[in-house]
Amino acid sequence: MATMLCFITTDADISPADLQSCLASAVERSLNSLSVDGDMSTNDCVIMLANGKSGCQQIKPDTPAYEQFEKALTQVCTELAKQIAHDGEGATKYVEVHAINAESYADAKAVAMKIANSPLVKTAIFGQDPNWGRVLCAAGGSGAHVDPAKTTLHFGDVKIVEKGEPVKLDAQIARKPMLEKELIIAVDLGLGDKSATAFTCDFSYDYVKINAEYHT
Amino acid sequence: MATMLCFITTDADISPADLQSCLASAVERSLNSLSVDGDMSTNDCVIMLANGKSGCQQIKPDTPAYEQFEKALTQVCTELAKQIAHDGEGATKYVEVHAINAESYADAKAVAMKIANSPLVKTAIFGQDPNWGRVLCAAGGSGAHVDPAKTTLHFGDVKIVEKGEPVKLDAQIARKPMLEKELIIAVDLGLGDKSATAFTCDFSYDYVKINAEYHT
Repeated sequence: MATMLCFITTDADISPADLQSCLASAVERSLNSLSVDGDMSTNDCVIMLANGKSGCQQIKPDTPAYEQFEKALTQVCTELAKQIAHDGEGATKYVEVHAINAESYADAKAVAMKIANSPLVKTAIFGQDPNWGRVLCAAGGSGAHVDPAKTTLHFGDVKIVEKGEPVKLDAQIARKPMLEKELIIAVDLGLGDKSATAFTCDFSYDYVKINAEYHT
Repeated sequence: MATMLCFITTDADISPADLQSCLASAVERSLNSLSVDGDMSTNDCVIMLANGKSGCQQIKPDTPAYEQFEKALTQVCTELAKQIAHDGEGATKYVEVHAINAESYADAKAVAMKIANSPLVKTAIFGQDPNWGRVLCAAGGSGAHVDPAKTTLHFGDVKIVEKGEPVKLDAQIARKPMLEKELIIAVDLGLGDKSATAFTCDFSYDYVKINAEYHT
């Protein structure tokens, strides 16, 4: 969560247990899928308060209202996660890593987070280099089931690897998505139908500067 | 293993299975306890060849010769791991992280590796800052059983945290070990008798430069 105290309030009428369950689910795919440098803080926390003053019926599980509430809460948490990634120390680029078609959600998340946390991937992004080797290498090192021959990789809308083979591309075209302020890395594992997204940023000289020059 | 092809040869007379077992044990505490940036390469490998030409008796398990051979092999692999860490991209300092008195070897290794791989710890070392908070934070984030109130931390020969409490020190004294070219970080978890060591280096501007400016 990148050192964050997060407070969310609502006037919904919902029991503490149901609110906790909604929050846990929303946080898993947002704030707990966020990484600036892979480090965590002892301060990291998300606290949610509901005062029940909405005047609407109590929100109960397995109802459309519950689904809608959970969806809205996930949206809020995702927005916060994206803002934190944008604001990463020294970040010059915002990066989303989409791992799709994995065998399991755990595999998809492991792949997305390993790529998001890889200093080699993050410095390549800072250097605006479409270094697909580092991305696939991180995916392979994630511990998830990955079959290189089934893996397809996009940087933005440019397909750079198809089923394990680098796509023949003009260097200018391959590099184009790397020049943008926001980059989406999409890894299609071709092994199932589960997906996960990690929210992160690049690793720049300023990351080192900010964290090396800060003294206790 | 930090992108490495490692070949070891010996004239010892030892069966392939026994050699493999010796090598696995030696590598676990040396080359597989090495990290420059937490990334792995698909090239990483250790290959060992024995031609049996020593003219000595075959080395068999549960003998003094086997123990001696395993010890010598571990020493060779450890020396190689140290050399690679010294030679890390942009490294200005060589760092050893000793996690001692853990409940299990797995816990000790998890703590040592998490500290060794923490970008916040590595940039603090580059900045020569005795930032004990980042070290304890990484230990706590390792997934291992850690009790802050039992944890003692040394930078070199300076005790900086004793059982969870920062030691009152003159800033000059606290900083002294950080100025050296080699730093030993020792985390005493106070929970058992297992230990592990990680071999690593700091994270500098040059790490970013080398890895951002290299283009595919």
